[in-house]
Amino acid sequence: MIGYQFMGKAHSHAYRDIPFFFSTKAKPILKALCGRNKEAVEEAAETMGWESVETDWRELIKRDDIDVIDIVTPNHTHAEIAIAAAKAGKHIITEKPLALTVEEAKEMKEAVEQHQVIHMICHNYRFVPAIQYTKQLIDQGRLGKIFHFRANYLQDFIIDPNFPLIWRLKKEVSGSGSLGDIGAHSIDLARFLVGEMDEVVAMTETFIKERPLGEMSGGLKAEANSQELGEVTVDDAVAFMVRFDSGTFGTFEATRFATGNRNRNTFEINGEKGSVRWDMENMNHLDVYFTDDEKGTQGFRRVLCTEEEHPYAEAYWPAGHIIGYEHTFIHLLYEFCESIINKKQAKPDFHDGYQNQLILDAIQKSATHKRWEKIPKAD
Amino acid sequence: MIGYQFMGKAHSHAYRDIPFFFSTKAKPILKALCGRNKEAVEEAAETMGWESVETDWRELIKRDDIDVIDIVTPNHTHAEIAIAAAKAGKHIITEKPLALTVEEAKEMKEAVEQHQVIHMICHNYRFVPAIQYTKQLIDQGRLGKIFHFRANYLQDFIIDPNFPLIWRLKKEVSGSGSLGDIGAHSIDLARFLVGEMDEVVAMTETFIKERPLGEMSGGLKAEANSQELGEVTVDDAVAFMVRFDSGTFGTFEATRFATGNRNRNTFEINGEKGSVRWDMENMNHLDVYFTDDEKGTQGFRRVLCTEEEHPYAEAYWPAGHIIGYEHTFIHLLYEFCESIINKKQAKPDFHDGYQNQLILDAIQKSATHKRWEKIPKAD
Amino acid sequence: MIGYQFMGKAHSHAYRDIPFFFSTKAKPILKALCGRNKEAVEEAAETMGWESVETDWRELIKRDDIDVIDIVTPNHTHAEIAIAAAKAGKHIITEKPLALTVEEAKEMKEAVEQHQVIHMICHNYRFVPAIQYTKQLIDQGRLGKIFHFRANYLQDFIIDPNFPLIWRLKKEVSGSGSLGDIGAHSIDLARFLVGEMDEVVAMTETFIKERPLGEMSGGLKAEANSQELGEVTVDDAVAFMVRFDSGTFGTFEATRFATGNRNRNTFEINGEKGSVRWDMENMNHLDVYFTDDEKGTQGFRRVLCTEEEHPYAEAYWPAGHIIGYEHTFIHLLYEFCESIINKKQAKPDFHDGYQNQLILDAIQKSATHKRWEKIPKAD
Amino acid sequence: MIGYQFMGKAHSHAYRDIPFFFSTKAKPILKALCGRNKEAVEEAAETMGWESVETDWRELIKRDDIDVIDIVTPNHTHAEIAIAAAKAGKHIITEKPLALTVEEAKEMKEAVEQHQVIHMICHNYRFVPAIQYTKQLIDQGRLGKIFHFRANYLQDFIIDPNFPLIWRLKKEVSGSGSLGDIGAHSIDLARFLVGEMDEVVAMTETFIKERPLGEMSGGLKAEANSQELGEVTVDDAVAFMVRFDSGTFGTFEATRFATGNRNRNTFEINGEKGSVRWDMENMNHLDVYFTDDEKGTQGFRRVLCTEEEHPYAEAYWPAGHIIGYEHTFIHLLYEFCESIINKKQAKPDFHDGYQNQLILDAIQKSATHKRWEKIPKAD
Repeated sequence: MIGYQFMGKAHSHAYRDIPFFFSTKAKPILKALCGRNKEAVEEAAETMGWESVETDWRELIKRDDIDVIDIVTPNHTHAEIAIAAAKAGKHIITEKPLALTVEEAKEMKEAVEQHQVIHMICHNYRFVPAIQYTKQLIDQGRLGKIFHFRANYLQDFIIDPNFPLIWRLKKEVSGSGSLGDIGAHSIDLARFLVGEMDEVVAMTETFIKERPLGEMSGGLKAEANSQELGEVTVDDAVAFMVRFDSGTFGTFEATRFATGNRNRNTFEINGEKGSVRWDMENMNHLDVYFTDDEKGTQGFRRVLCTEEEHPYAEAYWPAGHIIGYEHTFIHLLYEFCESIINKKQAKPDFHDGYQNQLILDAIQKSATHKRWEKIPKAD
Repeated sequence: MIGYQFMGKAHSHAYRDIPFFFSTKAKPILKALCGRNKEAVEEAAETMGWESVETDWRELIKRDDIDVIDIVTPNHTHAEIAIAAAKAGKHIITEKPLALTVEEAKEMKEAVEQHQVIHMICHNYRFVPAIQYTKQLIDQGRLGKIFHFRANYLQDFIIDPNFPLIWRLKKEVSGSGSLGDIGAHSIDLARFLVGEMDEVVAMTETFIKERPLGEMSGGLKAEANSQELGEVTVDDAVAFMVRFDSGTFGTFEATRFATGNRNRNTFEINGEKGSVRWDMENMNHLDVYFTDDEKGTQGFRRVLCTEEEHPYAEAYWPAGHIIGYEHTFIHLLYEFCESIINKKQAKPDFHDGYQNQLILDAIQKSATHKRWEKIPKAD
Repeated sequence: MIGYQFMGKAHSHAYRDIPFFFSTKAKPILKALCGRNKEAVEEAAETMGWESVETDWRELIKRDDIDVIDIVTPNHTHAEIAIAAAKAGKHIITEKPLALTVEEAKEMKEAVEQHQVIHMICHNYRFVPAIQYTKQLIDQGRLGKIFHFRANYLQDFIIDPNFPLIWRLKKEVSGSGSLGDIGAHSIDLARFLVGEMDEVVAMTETFIKERPLGEMSGGLKAEANSQELGEVTVDDAVAFMVRFDSGTFGTFEATRFATGNRNRNTFEINGEKGSVRWDMENMNHLDVYFTDDEKGTQGFRRVLCTEEEHPYAEAYWPAGHIIGYEHTFIHLLYEFCESIINKKQAKPDFHDGYQNQLILDAIQKSATHKRWEKIPKAD
Repeated sequence: MIGYQFMGKAHSHAYRDIPFFFSTKAKPILKALCGRNKEAVEEAAETMGWESVETDWRELIKRDDIDVIDIVTPNHTHAEIAIAAAKAGKHIITEKPLALTVEEAKEMKEAVEQHQVIHMICHNYRFVPAIQYTKQLIDQGRLGKIFHFRANYLQDFIIDPNFPLIWRLKKEVSGSGSLGDIGAHSIDLARFLVGEMDEVVAMTETFIKERPLGEMSGGLKAEANSQELGEVTVDDAVAFMVRFDSGTFGTFEATRFATGNRNRNTFEINGEKGSVRWDMENMNHLDVYFTDDEKGTQGFRRVLCTEEEHPYAEAYWPAGHIIGYEHTFIHLLYEFCESIINKKQAKPDFHDGYQNQLILDAIQKSATHKRWEKIPKAD
């Protein structure tokens, strides 16, 4: 694994938990952790249970005892590492967004296809049991034709003007702001649940245009370490309206300026036979409505998705005992491991990452040019 | 109508609204309002639309143009007025609790029966559409055998030690405290929905034992008007556990010391086939659960009881447009008027008031003697 | 009053309740109700307490005993009636949207200004206590600079393809669909709370393009009375993104195809010092967040706006006792009556109606031409 | 560790996660897992990462390489094992309730004290961050004097009459039913947050008196394996009212017949300066109310306890990312390990287990004899 911050921790933990909770032949072995700062990476490896460390990812890729490369570094490094790893015949999983640009994403997709390695992208929210269950309901036709998909992803961790100019606020490192960081999750969920998108119109805003220099100090916290100001080159907020291929009417908003909302990732789907509502802060619950419920008793059912009917839930605790954020990674990486064992590509993969990148790109163009944009389809 | 404070206002408004919202032959005429303070009662009559005033309720009862007596005075006056009104052949509606004592309640019940007048007691919460609908569900067997009835009535308007010793805090005027004022509502709802009670054990507490003298200044607000302290002679809080005749397991709590809860009147009913939950602060909503819902989609449905299937709802606005507290009185007094027109006794009546009084009395005895009490049945 | 359906009922009731709940010199007298069907209008007048009827609104306007004209007819008739009433020197209140077109709206605004009559438009949601209180919080700077305004108005009463082609689905009668009917409320709330809008981009959809002919049967219910199909000429759903003059980032969606949502009118406002959330189905509650709350205890406060600090609340019941939809009309019409008595124009008025119409028009143009539109300012 | 079902899994997982999430010198080594069925225990050891197995707990206790004994067996075996382990000088952690009887509990407490080993009892709910935070608020006086403690623990996994007579339904194995299984958690939380109890009156019920024989099949699921019926000898539901030493007024209910509630463990605390509400199904949220919040903005704050101010939260993910049920065990066992390393007894310990047992015993006596019972204090 390359990288060992917030996401590195989430992935490491998930690998450890897979064989504990799931009956599987895939036993991930935490061979080597890679980072540039030797001391820091050694400490992280110790804490998280990695057997060895590397300080140069190129060395890691050369190692014969490594079958899988997990990329949890900042966005601008994904492409180079992934392409090299593919060439080396390693299976690859990478954090989202796949890349900084459509071009990079395309190359990455082609590299993994050419070298026939297993590849996934970490859109972990797909793997919330409530969302997998939503997918089942939709596939079974329980919601009927989908009229609306309505998603918000609301955070508030940078409303303080003294919050520093971390890498997530620099376009050359992160590609975009709230769009690629959190909006990308909503886009991926929409594609997973409702299908492909046809066209989009978007609006972005950067509320605070300059910030003091400084760095992350863990999680999503950061401290200014300079009086000097630097320019924020990404969006603080983005909204976009989408027409899906299916005719579904889509509305999206992602922002880091939604005061009071720490990580409010929500959506609502309205179909001709029913609706669902979901909210990450209460990720185990799913509100479900069916039009064929008896009149007088119609209402959204508050379903606690911890029962044996709910995907992944049986691996854990009795009904009514909730799981948390980290379990989304356990499920995703479980599927990745199964995929490798069974030599059968899982989803979401680099194709999804590439398609998502095409959408992110269209959104940015739409916001820049203030016009509707057609969304290209990945081959 | 005798009395013109909080409840007087609620009743007056309801009489005015009945013919507006309901198609009925019963058109209440607001003939006369009665109160001891001439000036105040004249002002109230003007505001609320009463044709005339009286300052002595005995005079009111003598009047030939009065068919109905509505008693909204403090509790210790109910009996004398109601019995006199019954003797005068007036139909009677009175606020709850029916009386101060079981003996008074019994006399009142006998008086209205002997003089064959229509009688009701204002347990207005029965007339929330969600609760009438709950009653229908239970009667239809939709919840099956009832295991549990669990009620809380939580208020917080007297937690300030400077809140004065109003009449509601004096046993000789009000009979009891949270028990008779709000617990009585939970008792009445329980009897309405689940049936009669067999035995009870209770606990009461008076957290603040002395308060400055003072009076109500409107609604549930009041101001101290003296440095002098007087003894609080009623309960601030009461809890009781009940076995119903049906075997249902009942738990109740009523308190005026539940900080942060302005008027949180709630219950939950658990039956073998389903459950309901209700909360007066969201009185239009009813949470309903059915065990025969398909596995995986089981959960409490949040039903907004504003649809044509819900009792009284069609009299108002389209589905989704809520009604409020005052509508409970419109429904109750509508039933009272229909009852008079149709010469057919409605519920809850003085028989219910008497039975409720027997329960209140058993609860007080149980709390005093710290033992289980059998609940007598009204004849 | 001209018209006597859903809105006519709401207005009539409100006039009756104003002097009951509010201490005011303005006593509305329900002089005359006007409708084309004599029998029906007579029955409505009887039920709702109007003294006389007219079947031709021109006759009504001629009457000397009429000071005020209240227009609750379908949208395409507003302009002609209002202009005539203004010429006759009557004070005017009209249902929203003000008119079918910008031109009509402008004429109406000019007419009331020229003839110096008092004028209002029925954006009743402004008058929910929680919303008036939100306005106070914003005006006091409690939320700081506003980053986001995010509104949804979700209904589901026409998802059944057999729901007939009522007047609300015909452009020539209603002007637009979900946009003018419910989206207009969100627009008005946004202007009231956050200020004027600069530019907009919109998307609309008509999911069901043909419907059987038929008519309303009360409230929002309707029945098909023919096998014949007619074309739906308005939007079923609309979404739009707005930049406000203040830099606030606005997102809106209004739809009649949000299955399971009967009348879910919601918004969230995020500011640098705090946020609020509101939902009409729980209209008495306001969720309020402040950034200066002590760390560890920060969270949205669930405020029940029934306390003396909340506008209009003291006119009703003690804290914790909720009011309903109809009270929004009581408050609005109370302000209208006060306005007439005090000869001081209240808000929202025809100027607001005209500005709202300019916005509706820009939205429709934007959706038609698939481009951003600048929003003109009413003079 | 002795036992490897539901609780064995929770404990095993927690031991593995402690060094991952917490910076500690305590690294638990999963030496040996003990169970009577060799094949089953070997499979469990393999899955959960235990180094070796034993089929006789007496052998386990003899082993020199074992420092700690973790007892997750059915309740009737706790005493014998724990006492033997104490004699062998092992540190001990045991599942709750501590024992079947007060006498056993006393012996266990005396044994660990005499042999000076570290001892804990697994009341895991104490270790939810929201609850530890509640404890801090109370200790800081933020709620003032506590008027009310009101707890419900509602489950519904045995409402089906065909659910078999598992060990949890046999008094000789489990001691009691809902009381010791789930009510014991509420009792422990009450003591942790509000303090010791003075007297109690209780009511119990067994709704279904006979059930088919059968066994657990995992989690809380079970299957009948016989037509034969056996007698249910424990309570299905219990309610009790408590006076705390502090004068706090306590009400409790625990039931396995609350249809629709899978694991609804809730409480509300009302104090003179504030209140809190909590619910295990949304365990990361805490509703907090303060009386000194500005009038008009008073309401329960919905706090998501994932911030650095909240105990244990910083070990995991950024604010807004929730944790689940299993984390309560990580925290509890982390404290246990710290306790051993630092040779400093942590809470809750066998003293708490003994005191809880005295309360359970008083409750059972009260229910049997239908009278108030004084609660003895553990020495």
